[in-house]
Amino acid sequence: MTNIRHALSVTRDADFAAWYQDVISEAEMAEESGVRGCMVIRPWGYGIWERIQKLMDERIKAAGVENCYFPLFIPLSYFSKEAEHVEGFAKEMAVVTHHRLIADGKGGLVPDPEAKLEEPLIVRPTSETVIGAAMARWIQSWRDLPLLTNQWANVVRWEMRTRMFLRTSEFLWQEGHTAHADREDAMVETLRALEMYRSFSEECLAMPVMAGEKPENERFPGAVATYSIEAMMQDGKALQAGTSHYLGTSFADAAGIRYQDREGQQALCHTTSWGVSTRMIGGVIMVHGDDDGLRVPPAIAPHQIVILPMLRDDDGDAALLAYCEELRKALAAQSALGEPLRVMLDKRPGKATQKRWAWVKKGVPLILEIGGRDAAGEQVSVIRRDRLWREDGKVNFSAEARDSFVARAAAEVADIQHSLHVEATARRDANIHRGVGTLAELTEFFAEEKRYPGWVELNWSRPTGDALETVVQQLKALKLTIRNTPMDSAPAEGNCVFTDAPAVERIFVARAY
Amino acid sequence: MTNIRHALSVTRDADFAAWYQDVISEAEMAEESGVRGCMVIRPWGYGIWERIQKLMDERIKAAGVENCYFPLFIPLSYFSKEAEHVEGFAKEMAVVTHHRLIADGKGGLVPDPEAKLEEPLIVRPTSETVIGAAMARWIQSWRDLPLLTNQWANVVRWEMRTRMFLRTSEFLWQEGHTAHADREDAMVETLRALEMYRSFSEECLAMPVMAGEKPENERFPGAVATYSIEAMMQDGKALQAGTSHYLGTSFADAAGIRYQDREGQQALCHTTSWGVSTRMIGGVIMVHGDDDGLRVPPAIAPHQIVILPMLRDDDGDAALLAYCEELRKALAAQSALGEPLRVMLDKRPGKATQKRWAWVKKGVPLILEIGGRDAAGEQVSVIRRDRLWREDGKVNFSAEARDSFVARAAAEVADIQHSLHVEATARRDANIHRGVGTLAELTEFFAEEKRYPGWVELNWSRPTGDALETVVQQLKALKLTIRNTPMDSAPAEGNCVFTDAPAVERIFVARAY
Repeated sequence: MTNIRHALSVTRDADFAAWYQDVISEAEMAEESGVRGCMVIRPWGYGIWERIQKLMDERIKAAGVENCYFPLFIPLSYFSKEAEHVEGFAKEMAVVTHHRLIADGKGGLVPDPEAKLEEPLIVRPTSETVIGAAMARWIQSWRDLPLLTNQWANVVRWEMRTRMFLRTSEFLWQEGHTAHADREDAMVETLRALEMYRSFSEECLAMPVMAGEKPENERFPGAVATYSIEAMMQDGKALQAGTSHYLGTSFADAAGIRYQDREGQQALCHTTSWGVSTRMIGGVIMVHGDDDGLRVPPAIAPHQIVILPMLRDDDGDAALLAYCEELRKALAAQSALGEPLRVMLDKRPGKATQKRWAWVKKGVPLILEIGGRDAAGEQVSVIRRDRLWREDGKVNFSAEARDSFVARAAAEVADIQHSLHVEATARRDANIHRGVGTLAELTEFFAEEKRYPGWVELNWSRPTGDALETVVQQLKALKLTIRNTPMDSAPAEGNCVFTDAPAVERIFVARAY
Repeated sequence: MTNIRHALSVTRDADFAAWYQDVISEAEMAEESGVRGCMVIRPWGYGIWERIQKLMDERIKAAGVENCYFPLFIPLSYFSKEAEHVEGFAKEMAVVTHHRLIADGKGGLVPDPEAKLEEPLIVRPTSETVIGAAMARWIQSWRDLPLLTNQWANVVRWEMRTRMFLRTSEFLWQEGHTAHADREDAMVETLRALEMYRSFSEECLAMPVMAGEKPENERFPGAVATYSIEAMMQDGKALQAGTSHYLGTSFADAAGIRYQDREGQQALCHTTSWGVSTRMIGGVIMVHGDDDGLRVPPAIAPHQIVILPMLRDDDGDAALLAYCEELRKALAAQSALGEPLRVMLDKRPGKATQKRWAWVKKGVPLILEIGGRDAAGEQVSVIRRDRLWREDGKVNFSAEARDSFVARAAAEVADIQHSLHVEATARRDANIHRGVGTLAELTEFFAEEKRYPGWVELNWSRPTGDALETVVQQLKALKLTIRNTPMDSAPAEGNCVFTDAPAVERIFVARAY
């Protein structure tokens, strides 16, 4: 298209990383807080998170999982135990050592040396250990199983290099933790959570994902099997947007989670854990955003329709506002995607065009601009965010009779949800490459000048141990990682690209966030 | 009543404090976590909090307030500033000093001396300071006002003596923070929040409260005026269940929250803050609980109706479960208190009577016990939790035709909500005493053997400074505090009980949590 003056100052093509930051800032989703690695999530970003929480929580509850809340602080000793038996245990955590401040005599405050904790407390990086301890208290017999718990909480992992939503020291997430009588039941739950994440991403985020098992080297430390959903960003990189782990009995062993079975014997539980976080919002930005800012899928949009009255600070404003308020009510009485439409009438002072572009950058699915003439003629003027520009480079307004628009508004909202999914899926599928048969071809495919051209599907022999490590290093040299083996993968064909042994499954290889 | 064998081992009369702990434990609401002062909130307790959040959040959003999320950590320097200008600034806080653990060479972990933070971070005791800093960034002109923000979060205040829900080191709350152009607009918001809390308590928690202004000595440090809602517990003590503060311009001055007014002049904003916390759950327990455990008001009950099939592990179970499932669906299709009924079919293994008493202790409003004969006869057997016992000391079952019960279930649920409120209000009103004219009478009224007989309404002259401090000390000797001056108080009469000067308003004096 020609002569379009986009709303952002950076395009995706020019600098994807700078564009990402620009979307977040221009859509007023989040900002740096002044505390290293911690962000302030502003109303539009937090409103999207609230929508994600609501829709995910419904699915979690529908599966019979109950929400709990566990303490923010975990005694240091809980981690000593874990550090012993888990290789790859991460130690970058926030450590609380004092419980009081005292004046330093120079107008400042310092930690009070008299108030040093006997045992330091760790700000939870995950609640695995405390939830394990609770499960050990709560479970006595087979009647108590399965025990299905979930927590919505903030967690902290000290990160050296942070990016808003994608990797922050503090982030918001949900962590499901479940205990089962046997492997089979635990695996059913592990895969149920994975499928919940997959369908949630596709249906609510309009974000196509590959659900599958991670290779051995990418497993959660201590897990028997780790599954993920992987989404393709517009720069071709992969984003792991959710994980589900089958933990076998090792976590139960460490925490003492045992039950008496129907025969009266003591047995260890099989446990699982699964989580998604505010990282998903980073995925939504990089899957749906364009050079005019964010485009929010209607299912997670805090407002699906914004009505912008063209106020003129004169006598006509009252009638215009009355018309808009009636329009708002008529729209809010409709339902789309199983819920009443979320419609906002933006009466705030300010120029209408400025307000239009603010909403465009925020990515609200539908914007209705209403002037005095629209009101008099019972019309609306509609901008559909995912079809913002006409071929001639002008904004794609369409004028329509009010009643006709009200009648089709819900269908239009649902269509935007659908269209975003179709668009993202087509792009994802177009950027998955098959038929790479050698390492040389793989190297060629990801040559620097091609700038992350997407994902490659490879046949491999699923090497383990040192043989796997060799593969991991070969990929690392190309800045690549194995994402996962999709659940619905076609059977393997031919020989392994790395080992030349007969292939046993297919994997996706990509650059990743 | 005679010969009742109550479900709890401790009665309110025997030991109110022990009874409180027993309710929490027997209703499986919460438990100690192993971390001093932090609790694990179990599904029934957390489910009640989720209901409180949902209903409160609807009211907050309806007032045009937008939710945000601010960082868990606050740099120490933010507090140095506050400690300077706020007298009574509390310094009991969790202090993060390190960001990594390291092996101590003896199989344990210690904070890594190499990873000491340059500036310690404080785990937020409230987000006042960071929200103030954000407001200073976000507000430029009168067009940006009012700025209405709220946060749902965990906060930490190091407490020496803790009690679950009432006073814990970590607790969950919402904190509203708003900025306005002038005093008038800020006062309207302060009182709007107070009224929101009052009506929420009465309507959703069925908990009658007195909304009013706190005396000068009970103001939030730095506030110009502090308002509270005060509820009477069954032991006659008061619980402050929510506060709303008008902060004047002093917080804006400290944080630099300024705006350009319509004339182009810079001016300081007037700010407010308001909050309620998981403490409300402690109030619900002590207002509605009885010697059989909790009684949850239906508006905040995670399940309003529990269906208990009397399973017999035989061939009849399938038909019984089918009957119960159909009953569940028929009930869930009804609405009470503006929402679909929340109905749970408890199919878990276990003895039906044990399960009944577990639900009685949890306080679910209606329990339906369904045996094979009920199913065959299209009947239900109903227990209404707030009318648990018959005069003869037996459980107050009533058998009823299924269709008749389904038809009136929603009304019954609404009636329980109403009855709990009526009962609590009658008890509260019966325990407010008027006509105490002297300090001697006050002393006599609160004599030890009377065991906290309620609240006393006094006429007083609203002394300030040293004169107020004298009153505070006189009351302290009687273990009493001034709760508030209710908004709808009758005019003052006669002379002040303390100063003998002409009274200017009425106050409530009580023992308190």
